[in-house]
Amino acid sequence: MHEECGVFGIYCTSEYLVADVVYSGLFALQHRGQESCGIAVNDQGTVRVHKDMGLVGDVFSRAHLDRLPGRIAVGHVRYSTTGQSVRENAQPLVSHYQKGQMALAHNGNLSNTDTLRRALEAEGAIFSTTIDSEIIAYLIARGRTKTNHMEDAVMEALLKVTGAYSLLVMSRGKLIAVRDPFGFRPLCIGKLENGYVVASESCALDAAGAVFIRDVKPGEMITLDRRGLTSAMLNQPAAPHPCIFEYIYFARSDSQIDGVSVHQARLRAGRLLAAQHPASADLVIGVPESGIDAAIGYSQASGIPYGKGFVKNTYIGRTFIQPTQDQRESALRLKLNPIRAVIAGKRLVMIDDSIVRGTTSARIIRLLKDAGASQVHVRISAPPFMWPCYFGTDIPSQKQLIARQKSQKEICAEIGADSLGFLDQSSLGEMIGMPDQRFYCDACFSGDYPRGSLENTD
Amino acid sequence: MHEECGVFGIYCTSEYLVADVVYSGLFALQHRGQESCGIAVNDQGTVRVHKDMGLVGDVFSRAHLDRLPGRIAVGHVRYSTTGQSVRENAQPLVSHYQKGQMALAHNGNLSNTDTLRRALEAEGAIFSTTIDSEIIAYLIARGRTKTNHMEDAVMEALLKVTGAYSLLVMSRGKLIAVRDPFGFRPLCIGKLENGYVVASESCALDAAGAVFIRDVKPGEMITLDRRGLTSAMLNQPAAPHPCIFEYIYFARSDSQIDGVSVHQARLRAGRLLAAQHPASADLVIGVPESGIDAAIGYSQASGIPYGKGFVKNTYIGRTFIQPTQDQRESALRLKLNPIRAVIAGKRLVMIDDSIVRGTTSARIIRLLKDAGASQVHVRISAPPFMWPCYFGTDIPSQKQLIARQKSQKEICAEIGADSLGFLDQSSLGEMIGMPDQRFYCDACFSGDYPRGSLENTD
Amino acid sequence: MHEECGVFGIYCTSEYLVADVVYSGLFALQHRGQESCGIAVNDQGTVRVHKDMGLVGDVFSRAHLDRLPGRIAVGHVRYSTTGQSVRENAQPLVSHYQKGQMALAHNGNLSNTDTLRRALEAEGAIFSTTIDSEIIAYLIARGRTKTNHMEDAVMEALLKVTGAYSLLVMSRGKLIAVRDPFGFRPLCIGKLENGYVVASESCALDAAGAVFIRDVKPGEMITLDRRGLTSAMLNQPAAPHPCIFEYIYFARSDSQIDGVSVHQARLRAGRLLAAQHPASADLVIGVPESGIDAAIGYSQASGIPYGKGFVKNTYIGRTFIQPTQDQRESALRLKLNPIRAVIAGKRLVMIDDSIVRGTTSARIIRLLKDAGASQVHVRISAPPFMWPCYFGTDIPSQKQLIARQKSQKEICAEIGADSLGFLDQSSLGEMIGMPDQRFYCDACFSGDYPRGSLENTD
Amino acid sequence: MHEECGVFGIYCTSEYLVADVVYSGLFALQHRGQESCGIAVNDQGTVRVHKDMGLVGDVFSRAHLDRLPGRIAVGHVRYSTTGQSVRENAQPLVSHYQKGQMALAHNGNLSNTDTLRRALEAEGAIFSTTIDSEIIAYLIARGRTKTNHMEDAVMEALLKVTGAYSLLVMSRGKLIAVRDPFGFRPLCIGKLENGYVVASESCALDAAGAVFIRDVKPGEMITLDRRGLTSAMLNQPAAPHPCIFEYIYFARSDSQIDGVSVHQARLRAGRLLAAQHPASADLVIGVPESGIDAAIGYSQASGIPYGKGFVKNTYIGRTFIQPTQDQRESALRLKLNPIRAVIAGKRLVMIDDSIVRGTTSARIIRLLKDAGASQVHVRISAPPFMWPCYFGTDIPSQKQLIARQKSQKEICAEIGADSLGFLDQSSLGEMIGMPDQRFYCDACFSGDYPRGSLENTD
Repeated sequence: MHEECGVFGIYCTSEYLVADVVYSGLFALQHRGQESCGIAVNDQGTVRVHKDMGLVGDVFSRAHLDRLPGRIAVGHVRYSTTGQSVRENAQPLVSHYQKGQMALAHNGNLSNTDTLRRALEAEGAIFSTTIDSEIIAYLIARGRTKTNHMEDAVMEALLKVTGAYSLLVMSRGKLIAVRDPFGFRPLCIGKLENGYVVASESCALDAAGAVFIRDVKPGEMITLDRRGLTSAMLNQPAAPHPCIFEYIYFARSDSQIDGVSVHQARLRAGRLLAAQHPASADLVIGVPESGIDAAIGYSQASGIPYGKGFVKNTYIGRTFIQPTQDQRESALRLKLNPIRAVIAGKRLVMIDDSIVRGTTSARIIRLLKDAGASQVHVRISAPPFMWPCYFGTDIPSQKQLIARQKSQKEICAEIGADSLGFLDQSSLGEMIGMPDQRFYCDACFSGDYPRGSLENTD
Repeated sequence: MHEECGVFGIYCTSEYLVADVVYSGLFALQHRGQESCGIAVNDQGTVRVHKDMGLVGDVFSRAHLDRLPGRIAVGHVRYSTTGQSVRENAQPLVSHYQKGQMALAHNGNLSNTDTLRRALEAEGAIFSTTIDSEIIAYLIARGRTKTNHMEDAVMEALLKVTGAYSLLVMSRGKLIAVRDPFGFRPLCIGKLENGYVVASESCALDAAGAVFIRDVKPGEMITLDRRGLTSAMLNQPAAPHPCIFEYIYFARSDSQIDGVSVHQARLRAGRLLAAQHPASADLVIGVPESGIDAAIGYSQASGIPYGKGFVKNTYIGRTFIQPTQDQRESALRLKLNPIRAVIAGKRLVMIDDSIVRGTTSARIIRLLKDAGASQVHVRISAPPFMWPCYFGTDIPSQKQLIARQKSQKEICAEIGADSLGFLDQSSLGEMIGMPDQRFYCDACFSGDYPRGSLENTD
Repeated sequence: MHEECGVFGIYCTSEYLVADVVYSGLFALQHRGQESCGIAVNDQGTVRVHKDMGLVGDVFSRAHLDRLPGRIAVGHVRYSTTGQSVRENAQPLVSHYQKGQMALAHNGNLSNTDTLRRALEAEGAIFSTTIDSEIIAYLIARGRTKTNHMEDAVMEALLKVTGAYSLLVMSRGKLIAVRDPFGFRPLCIGKLENGYVVASESCALDAAGAVFIRDVKPGEMITLDRRGLTSAMLNQPAAPHPCIFEYIYFARSDSQIDGVSVHQARLRAGRLLAAQHPASADLVIGVPESGIDAAIGYSQASGIPYGKGFVKNTYIGRTFIQPTQDQRESALRLKLNPIRAVIAGKRLVMIDDSIVRGTTSARIIRLLKDAGASQVHVRISAPPFMWPCYFGTDIPSQKQLIARQKSQKEICAEIGADSLGFLDQSSLGEMIGMPDQRFYCDACFSGDYPRGSLENTD
Repeated sequence: MHEECGVFGIYCTSEYLVADVVYSGLFALQHRGQESCGIAVNDQGTVRVHKDMGLVGDVFSRAHLDRLPGRIAVGHVRYSTTGQSVRENAQPLVSHYQKGQMALAHNGNLSNTDTLRRALEAEGAIFSTTIDSEIIAYLIARGRTKTNHMEDAVMEALLKVTGAYSLLVMSRGKLIAVRDPFGFRPLCIGKLENGYVVASESCALDAAGAVFIRDVKPGEMITLDRRGLTSAMLNQPAAPHPCIFEYIYFARSDSQIDGVSVHQARLRAGRLLAAQHPASADLVIGVPESGIDAAIGYSQASGIPYGKGFVKNTYIGRTFIQPTQDQRESALRLKLNPIRAVIAGKRLVMIDDSIVRGTTSARIIRLLKDAGASQVHVRISAPPFMWPCYFGTDIPSQKQLIARQKSQKEICAEIGADSLGFLDQSSLGEMIGMPDQRFYCDACFSGDYPRGSLENTD
């Protein structure tokens, strides 16, 4: 279960170590994408970029940052599916066009990529990458031939685009930030002493030493330039539907999205679960990392003590050498080892954020039972996955989704749990503290895609 | 606050992917040393080694492991102080001697290094490294000229040595594991289908897919060879004094040392703290990682709810580029960001495992207050650091130890806490579940070094 | 003095290690560009590419080649001026367009780049690189929207282009090779058992195990596909003017270009020099590498014995750390050390291929005199550089060209030679064995640019 | 055919970029060893070292050199046979001993290694490497326990050693250079403005900007310290027998060894060959690199014109990916391509420096005939290899030596030559300009090992 990307941008009015700030910001967003990353800096119209496959800490050295002077910058961390996992697709995307250079960083997926691409190719366009951002760059460059205002070109370009985009556009003198009319992906603004930053999550503002100002609104376009911060709405009706899965899984607990603390949402999910699916148990534990928050909530609401059930080995990253077949079992234990002394002889409530194929859940439960747990009651802090996402969440095909193929009873048996409960879909509003309002997209659970979001879908 | 090293060894009776198993074991021990690591494998008398500066995941590739066939192996992860941080000092140490090759991996510090070294040099010895292990290798090689039994040579060599050593010696046909008579550093044994493993901590046995058998006893020498496992006691009186700080900080929560669960010890430390230093507060939070366990214990004993106070960025490793002076403050926040939504307006109990210089504590408390905490009551799950450690714990000089320089009241003021409490030294026995017995070394807190441990100290 | 690039392509009718063959071919062309290199392979329509800054031997490993299966491939080695020396500009350029993917490799410089680029940008085009090839790719993609035949699109595209291009275009099922109507840069065809190769120089055919068939003619387009080799002429009048400097400097001695052996041309240059600028001397020596051939020729014609004057250190590459100011003198000696025993007390004729700024020549002569040479008569196997090149030769600005600023007498004095002679411009035809015909471009010496070559120049 | 190693040392009286100078010196000695290299610098008693597998240009960066301040330094380039090709064996060898640290760099092979090693091990010594230098370091350290003078310890140590050693020893305040009593390997001294350098070959003095003073004499020990240069003879009779193969193959043409120019020796070898083995031919060509010099000599003596027969691809280094079986033939052509235009239709004399197994010679001759040579008369500028070398030349086993297995007539047939001639063994003295004296070791040709050189051989 992955999301594609995080973005970070900075505009300063005076000379500043902008590349260093973006570097810190990307570190705070690393959980949103570990495949590739990059920083592009604008030095009075000349854009320099460094990007590569790998983690922020591996891709950038002091020397790289020092070679990126300037006052405006954008950065990106990326996750992608295997097929397109090539260096060419790392962002930010830097393009030369009629007015010089621009750099784009994009979080989210367009839903009408193929249509747009085919149309552009029919007119002779060539593409160097397979990422959506290059399509947007094209549309902007085309628009720009008819207007002197970057903002107008961006607005016009985005009229042709559907889907999810939290988009940063760096031009010669501006940093433009846009959140799509549905507001699928988060985007927020922070203030520095001598400038502004924008980022996918507020935790990156903290890391950058910036003060949170506000979220960018769905359908809003922010311009940061020497006049300061200006705002305009896209020429399209906004229909706010932020992705609910950001609260459940993607975002970091210390972020706040659209006025709602991610950690609080997870706590509430745990509390709701306790009400909806109570259990007779001795201890509540969470599967790190996002299960921890909900487990605390479940414990608070149920009165069952909270405990630390696992140690997660945080040293295991992309470089870890896959174990042989024989060692598969111990490999999971290498990543996530139960604490026997806590677990042995206990009836457990185990909170996780999702069941996708069911195989990992089954393995974790086996570990717990091998460690002596007498019962394992599984509670999932989200409804079951049933539908595809067209907006940037990498959900397996429906064939592989266990909730699509089996009843909850069958799932419970298959993963070896003593009982199983999912969060009710109807309580997602309550989870984010807005019980009366349908202010989110939960299509992956409900199949109910926001009206208009798939209109031009390929 | 660091410890020096972790060790892992394996002996198999049949062909097996021993290098892969050591690799997994070292991953589980990575918290004990991140500076360098290595694996040496014995292929029928020929020892091949791969070691380098860096994390296990960076130093080893599939190709490296494939080039290390054999049936016996030892591995090592190392932490060291800056001066000696050179590739030459990475372990295992492989030496050619009269009977072929041997490889040593050592966790702990000898206390009579200089004396031994000078004596050897006076007879014309040369050293390629500055690590203790080379001295031990010398002593073994010398002893070996007078006996045909490796065990005898090891025993004789260790008669000359004082201090802490959990030592693995790989010879042509054997793996020998020794824990010093005080048992300062942990060492335990696990069973595989076709062999045995030994490791600094039991979490590494889990990672290796081995079943925990028992701890190596202080003063015990284990031999693993084709006859299986045999045990002997060193020719010295054993005086068990395992390092209490393993429970407080070094070891992983999921390890069990000398029959005591590390996690349980930390939980108990939290409970004891709650009794010794109660507080009027709304929430108990822990400073990750080891503060978490004690915080849960404090919450259970005090009835004050437990909460998640911080998000720790686990992507930040050795490659992280140090921030400029201006960014120092935000750098801490990059590593450890408070969750505002939890903290704002709350009276907090914050549990940490130690206060060394006081500067980091001060910064963390400031972060919490900036995030809106109305009070921060600091509770430390250990007594104050007062004395040097000669056995492998890297404690700053006494001048830098704040507890040595100031009263607790002064410390409380300096770090900006609303109250401060340390765990009573007298309750360390209770912490590890042995209230009536003095079965540990707490010299760093008490100055009470185990009798005989410093006899030959330089 | 550098040229920009070498190209290599292969088309096989059956499965074959095409990446390995291109690898060998690029090694043989490495002298044409040491900045970056790359190989793109077509696997039934899917193009995979690996390219990076650095030498062929550093950029490619066995694993890289193994990940590039297919039956058609193109490769490239690149030299560039500093400003554009970025990874993005490495070739082959792989583009996605309406019909799938194409890959381009280009040797030479267009002379109307800016005009073409501006025109494309005015219609909304974006560029990911600053290389000419991307312009050509655009023109082809645009043409391709109107025709089903790749060859037609290529032909139409090249109608808009002026300057030098030895161009390889790899499409889904074809490898197309074009040499511009002037034939500025070389390009030749070789036969394998199961296919064809095309390369900038015939030495690369030898390295690839291919048999030389013939040169591609100026203005000719070769198509290699399942029908075999077919040829067509561009829709433009051909006016053959191959670059004469290929014979003097760029090409390797073992190559044959347009029917003329490069080594023979250099031998003849030496012989002509001997006739035009005789000298009373004891020994003829050549400045490695290209001066060697002409020195042998001068010796043969003059009867003055040939000797080896220098040892060139071939280990010094791009990674060599530049010496401090103090060591500049010894740094040249590190690269090119005179053999004292040969030189001491001798009157020398020293053959070099060019004098650009004069500084290197001055240093070399000083080395020889320090080594005891009594006289140094400098003979240059080319006329003096006077004019810019628009077709891919990186000649310094006219201000820096010593021949533009000073008389030959002044140059002789400045470099410390005892006499100085350049090859007569009028004998360049004789040098390549075509005394009666003007079948080459010598504009850098004469200022006489081929008619039409600069027509659309920016 | 390889030799093991080159050494370079520097002693300065004032602060100087000693690491930079060693770096330049090692570049000039790179032909003596391409497997590993290293530099150790003495900073007032503290020795820092950087060494690794690979070429000088790859192992060292600006940052590495900057981290090596000091006034005394030693460097090393190494070649070794496969078995011992491990990083541990890279030199200089840095050892800690009673008086601090010392660093050794050694060119040559001891002949009584095993005996010495066994004796040391019998007393309990351990070794970290498998190189001879560690044995010498041991002997020095042992001797040093009985004397306050490093020179005395070195002298005493070397009494126990037989074989070839051109040895540099860097102690706290001195650089000591010793050449064994036979003077097997070269070693010479140069002067800088503020100090001295010593090097395996004089070409390294040139590269370092030093002025050649003289060779170190066989059996001489040079000390460089604040008193300047002092000399002493070892306590052993000197019996000068420098390796003749240095002149034939190992050394660089621009070096001068024991008063004899290497290039001149090769020229003379060519002239002698012309007299001993004349041929009716149109052209004399040399196999690069060392065959070139002798070919010029053959041409001068025979009157047959000299020509350039091959282009050698100097980009092919250790990183070159070995070709598949099919491509073996073209792989040689990739490294060494004949110039067809020179060769076609010609009767050639081809000069090479040796025939070892005969396979490479056969391939080269085939290339020439394929390129159209009508005849190939092979002349070898050395006698045939018949005997093993115990002093550092890596000669294959006698079974593999074609000259040991077959008559010259059979060899000629096997390699496909039209005639074959070796240099007469009796003319080696004349080759180095000392016809009346037996001042060299030619045991690899004659089996006549210098008296006493193998006395203690294992």
